[in-house]
Amino acid sequence: AQSAVNITGLLDIGVKYNGNPSAGTPTYAVARGNNNRITFSGAEDLGGGLTATFGLQHRFEPDTGTLENPSGGTSRPFWQGESRVGLRGGFGWIRMGRGLTAVQDPNGAYDVYGVATVASLQGVLTAGFNSDPAQSNGAGGGRVNNGIFYQSPDLGGTVLRASFSPTEGVAGYKHRHTGLSAEYKAGALNAMAGWEKNSAGNSLVEIAGKYDFGRAIAFLGFSHQDTIDSARDRTGVAFGARIPVGKLVIKAGYGRLKTKDFVGSQSATDTVLGTGVDYLLSKRTYLYADVARLKTAEGSTALTYRQATVADLGIALTF
Amino acid sequence: AQSAVNITGLLDIGVKYNGNPSAGTPTYAVARGNNNRITFSGAEDLGGGLTATFGLQHRFEPDTGTLENPSGGTSRPFWQGESRVGLRGGFGWIRMGRGLTAVQDPNGAYDVYGVATVASLQGVLTAGFNSDPAQSNGAGGGRVNNGIFYQSPDLGGTVLRASFSPTEGVAGYKHRHTGLSAEYKAGALNAMAGWEKNSAGNSLVEIAGKYDFGRAIAFLGFSHQDTIDSARDRTGVAFGARIPVGKLVIKAGYGRLKTKDFVGSQSATDTVLGTGVDYLLSKRTYLYADVARLKTAEGSTALTYRQATVADLGIALTF
Amino acid sequence: AQSAVNITGLLDIGVKYNGNPSAGTPTYAVARGNNNRITFSGAEDLGGGLTATFGLQHRFEPDTGTLENPSGGTSRPFWQGESRVGLRGGFGWIRMGRGLTAVQDPNGAYDVYGVATVASLQGVLTAGFNSDPAQSNGAGGGRVNNGIFYQSPDLGGTVLRASFSPTEGVAGYKHRHTGLSAEYKAGALNAMAGWEKNSAGNSLVEIAGKYDFGRAIAFLGFSHQDTIDSARDRTGVAFGARIPVGKLVIKAGYGRLKTKDFVGSQSATDTVLGTGVDYLLSKRTYLYADVARLKTAEGSTALTYRQATVADLGIALTF
Repeated sequence: AQSAVNITGLLDIGVKYNGNPSAGTPTYAVARGNNNRITFSGAEDLGGGLTATFGLQHRFEPDTGTLENPSGGTSRPFWQGESRVGLRGGFGWIRMGRGLTAVQDPNGAYDVYGVATVASLQGVLTAGFNSDPAQSNGAGGGRVNNGIFYQSPDLGGTVLRASFSPTEGVAGYKHRHTGLSAEYKAGALNAMAGWEKNSAGNSLVEIAGKYDFGRAIAFLGFSHQDTIDSARDRTGVAFGARIPVGKLVIKAGYGRLKTKDFVGSQSATDTVLGTGVDYLLSKRTYLYADVARLKTAEGSTALTYRQATVADLGIALTF
Repeated sequence: AQSAVNITGLLDIGVKYNGNPSAGTPTYAVARGNNNRITFSGAEDLGGGLTATFGLQHRFEPDTGTLENPSGGTSRPFWQGESRVGLRGGFGWIRMGRGLTAVQDPNGAYDVYGVATVASLQGVLTAGFNSDPAQSNGAGGGRVNNGIFYQSPDLGGTVLRASFSPTEGVAGYKHRHTGLSAEYKAGALNAMAGWEKNSAGNSLVEIAGKYDFGRAIAFLGFSHQDTIDSARDRTGVAFGARIPVGKLVIKAGYGRLKTKDFVGSQSATDTVLGTGVDYLLSKRTYLYADVARLKTAEGSTALTYRQATVADLGIALTF
Repeated sequence: AQSAVNITGLLDIGVKYNGNPSAGTPTYAVARGNNNRITFSGAEDLGGGLTATFGLQHRFEPDTGTLENPSGGTSRPFWQGESRVGLRGGFGWIRMGRGLTAVQDPNGAYDVYGVATVASLQGVLTAGFNSDPAQSNGAGGGRVNNGIFYQSPDLGGTVLRASFSPTEGVAGYKHRHTGLSAEYKAGALNAMAGWEKNSAGNSLVEIAGKYDFGRAIAFLGFSHQDTIDSARDRTGVAFGARIPVGKLVIKAGYGRLKTKDFVGSQSATDTVLGTGVDYLLSKRTYLYADVARLKTAEGSTALTYRQATVADLGIALTF
């Protein structure tokens, strides 16, 4: 009964500024920073080293009370974050359902901004890769439907992950998602490398690491997206640092993402240059402020760039 | 983790009778009285007098299992009731997200029926005012999206509230929501006054009070809605009493709402005259029965009135 | 407050195989077996033998994170499983809201597969009966909206149930749902009989029983669906057994469902022949594997049969 379910969550909301908004988007908005979520999870000890597990993560927009991305081609299912049942033992952890792929599961820890704030480099690290274009909730944020997920036990500091999703007869998507990654943690060093292929046949390679020098944590990451028709292949590089100073954490980062044949045979390069500061109110709650300069390619017949200064000021808490 | 989240709720369902239903609506229906809800909330003591807070309130229809108002122009988001994150301290309480405006937050306590039952006078007290017509979930029940909310500490019996919502570029809605209210509580007397303007530029003034004479609580309230084009301005007055008799609470009330230029230059006056009784099964649960006579203006080319006797019989509980 | 709410649930996901899928459906899929759910429920002791109760059951698809049956004519409301408020006392239990009918509430216990797995005989036992076609979420899985439900106290081993739902003016559905059932439990014998009529005027009779011989539990059930225009009347019979062997439970069953006038005046008979095994990991968690041979009538102008071997392999847990 109730003893078996844990309810946890993350809330993050603030004011966002965009100095050069596209048509129909505002200069100032109240909006989420990170993805707001409530998670229902549990684990049952089955004896003999076996554990049954489940995790259900709802996502929502705190500024409007709707599901995450409530409309359009990237609208999310209610349990967007995760809906998985699993079995854990000496062999590792096998789960089935919807969840982050082998590559996209660990990689959030390698964005200097933790996949939040206007300065986030996650888009560079994942090359904007869509793990499951066959599902109707298109760009599912690195997740696959109908997935089978494996995570190895800790093998002397290394954890291996694999994800697989059968095609389920969606017209036009004949490839099966397959993902593999390895993550290594030893003292001050964390590093990961992974590869995945999505239902359209496109693939992503990501290599990332971070090192804790004590006074600062340095981040570095590479991504390459290889499309099945070689058009719009993308290559990204991101680096940054987190510097704790008392109750403050100073953050800074830079990323660039090159897209091949963006317009005709012309390549384009998006960049993100940002900095910010977190003020820790407790272990679970902090205020944040960030500013970034974004350069984003636009145009279908002629390549142009939209340059914008963006900023945010908000509060994030976990429970 | 789980220690930090409280799950509370309100359920209210019964049988409703309408003696003169409009076309396509039934004479008898199983339906909610009050708005059914589940709330996930929490507070974290940050030390130094500071508290981080969150509140997420889901609303639903208990007779059909759907979200509140599941279809049409007033369909609700999943977290219709509230989705707010806040910081509370000696300065008061600042919250961001979706929630009741400064006027509509306290005013439910000034309806003799507590914004429930077929005899509710809440429509008169708020003059049917839509706090955020720019949002797609139109008549959001006194709530604004993208809101910033302030509530003062208790200033010698008075609490001040303010709400603000930036425009976020929705075509046709160029006004920013702004709301202000003051509520005063001293012994037997409770009173409030407030003003707000919505995203269409229309404004609402509400003044209401109640006094506990011991044998009865008397209620009185006024509202005035001022539309930006002066058409369909609305003025309401409501009064009533709650009389506790052992485990019973007898309720009675009257309200009238005058709408200017309802048809051409012709004004219309809706009235609600009702009475009811609650039977307290515990501090958290009661049975209720109510009957009311409604007179409601109709017609676009000629003014007519629909007169109907309505009644309900139901059960409400909180958890 | 929180002490009053219980959060429980059931998760069931696995790999399904269909050896002869219809167009657009896959041979292999990751999918739910049983209906995945989270339930929020509670009971308040009101004294004097009275208890107030509530139950809210959310249903979802664990493979995609969406609500149950997310699209098309059988899409489900968020609280698909149940949304009911009730009062329980010496007189029995009265509930209002959305929930299983008097017949469909107890009958899940009479399917040898517990209304789960590819070999389930529940479709035969309920003759594919739709308890509330008037509601937009069509085939609601044996549930009615706007229901009033009665369950008697235990009358010497017998429990009586009744369900009722007023028409609420949905065009074309002038009948009120009415359902009645009796269930008898005495030692090794469980049995039920029930009748219901839906909003279209069609009726269902179901008689089912099971007997625990110690080494095995035998199941037997009959159904008859009587349509208001006598077309497509359906008659079903199902039988099977569950045989516990240590941590294993072996399951086997057979069902046939005859549909009158399937094509013109030609009747059709669907059959299900299946077997499977559960491996109990704990009292709350098990692995399962099943295989069945399905023969299903198709065609609108000429009667044909689709024959398919189907199988599943999955994990189910409750919390």
